[in-house]
Amino acid sequence: MVKQKLIVGVDIGGTNTVFGFIQENGKCFFSNSMSTHPDEEADIFIERLSNKIKTDFRNYSSSYTLSGIGIAAPMANHLNGTIETPSNIKWNNVKFVEMIKKIFSVPTAIINDANAAALGEYEYGLGKGIKNFIVITLGTGLGSGIFINGNLLHNPAGLTSEFGHTIVNPYGRRCNCGRIGCLETYASATGIRRTVLELMAKYNGETELHKIPFSEISGKLINDLAIKNDPIAAEAFQYTGEILGKALANLAISFVPEKIILLGGLTDSDDLLLEPTCKHFEKNLLENYKGKIKIQKSSMENGMSAILGAGSLISKEIFRNS
Amino acid sequence: MVKQKLIVGVDIGGTNTVFGFIQENGKCFFSNSMSTHPDEEADIFIERLSNKIKTDFRNYSSSYTLSGIGIAAPMANHLNGTIETPSNIKWNNVKFVEMIKKIFSVPTAIINDANAAALGEYEYGLGKGIKNFIVITLGTGLGSGIFINGNLLHNPAGLTSEFGHTIVNPYGRRCNCGRIGCLETYASATGIRRTVLELMAKYNGETELHKIPFSEISGKLINDLAIKNDPIAAEAFQYTGEILGKALANLAISFVPEKIILLGGLTDSDDLLLEPTCKHFEKNLLENYKGKIKIQKSSMENGMSAILGAGSLISKEIFRNS
Repeated sequence: MVKQKLIVGVDIGGTNTVFGFIQENGKCFFSNSMSTHPDEEADIFIERLSNKIKTDFRNYSSSYTLSGIGIAAPMANHLNGTIETPSNIKWNNVKFVEMIKKIFSVPTAIINDANAAALGEYEYGLGKGIKNFIVITLGTGLGSGIFINGNLLHNPAGLTSEFGHTIVNPYGRRCNCGRIGCLETYASATGIRRTVLELMAKYNGETELHKIPFSEISGKLINDLAIKNDPIAAEAFQYTGEILGKALANLAISFVPEKIILLGGLTDSDDLLLEPTCKHFEKNLLENYKGKIKIQKSSMENGMSAILGAGSLISKEIFRNS
Repeated sequence: MVKQKLIVGVDIGGTNTVFGFIQENGKCFFSNSMSTHPDEEADIFIERLSNKIKTDFRNYSSSYTLSGIGIAAPMANHLNGTIETPSNIKWNNVKFVEMIKKIFSVPTAIINDANAAALGEYEYGLGKGIKNFIVITLGTGLGSGIFINGNLLHNPAGLTSEFGHTIVNPYGRRCNCGRIGCLETYASATGIRRTVLELMAKYNGETELHKIPFSEISGKLINDLAIKNDPIAAEAFQYTGEILGKALANLAISFVPEKIILLGGLTDSDDLLLEPTCKHFEKNLLENYKGKIKIQKSSMENGMSAILGAGSLISKEIFRNS
């Protein structure tokens, strides 16, 4: 029996790393995940990841050849195959592609995580057939990927769009990047946790949140409490949506996309986040822009657009020869 | 003798309207201007402009045929040939192209003024050979034109980039667009005049500026006083540069251009404006972006990039057949 080719798509996040096995038709038929430890050395992380991929691949090795690996990661430089200085993982110019290639000996490529998600949305998601759109990933941080005229925006020097690091409040929160007031310190899973703290400090009285240690307060927990009408959890979503909506309005006025696609863990909260985001987005647009730029939540399973996008980096090359 | 073809390029600004006669080689060999009255009806304005063009053209009519007109204007919609609702002129959906065509009976096109300037810079200026750059016009308002991958950014619905209307201070100055805190209420010839007022209110003591009615305080006058070390005029440039530099850093982080080109009346002040702008731009960039994105003042005469850019809208078509 001739084995089919298979591409591994990997999405390295600040909290979790997810990978999937992708067929020629772009279908991901298996996925798994492991936690990312922000303080772990890159070589230890790569060993863990490789072992996990190898173990899972064994179940499919009778029908498939592992033919390539596409990686999505924060602060990835697609030109030289490195991960530079991600703000949520303590790595510094890791030669990621080289290290993975040494282990698997297959074509390997890397790309900024939000750009991977934008590629995935363009090939298989809500970006299909759209020439100008922006993807915003709301995970541990906030990432941005931009399609213009049917092409992923990139700078010849390898710089990529980092909308999460635009400064929205110069007197605001300290960011992992070393600066103050970056959008991602507000609009991200980490940001909404900090907002909860601020609101607890602001108001009198105690709610469920006061009984839980901060280390256990996750975006998911804030979501669950907001659904139960916890006033602080509910206001935290309103506040996050307001900051995000206003920032997206400024971005849309500058770059006139047809659509903005939101994805990542925080979007699991659906309307809790989307309703205030869209309200403040529309409110802050110029009059003649109103109603002309859509904000939508990705229709793909979480992490899948980045996995498929990363995979698509090399899948065309691999499958073309198959 | 066979007459040469000539294109008229027009740049309609909030204060002045400039036009030029352009040859096939892109050289503008004659230009003239008239004031724009913000309250004048569009048809009266068009009559004045047409008469002025006709009068000036008479001197060249023995050697040239007037073969086309390209117009740069604020809030111009290139798809339907209208000027929608410019914030500094009181027009509302003027069918500008149709009205001009009725008078001259030649191919006529219109484009947003900052996009025209970006086209001009791409064809003849500092944008030559650059794939990704942003042009910022600092005149009565603040306009933006963006080139990505060698193409002018535009939205299929006709929306154009209006970076001047991104909100930088939601508790700030009222903008002609009806919203509050738009960048152009600070970083423009109008903005710096308002900054002078704020600084006069803030400080004790009187300077030269206190003896001049506000209606006579122009960007040029503030420039001249700053050179003479008037403390308020000097601080007004520092403040304008700080706000502009910070906003451009956010824009650059989002869109990773190779270069930002500044032009328009306010850039006549050269280093008075450029020094604080570049300082705050660099200071507010992400670490790995520092030193990689240039801010430059256009090397073309004021208004010329928009005139040539507007002309280039149709010149290729006209001269191709000549």
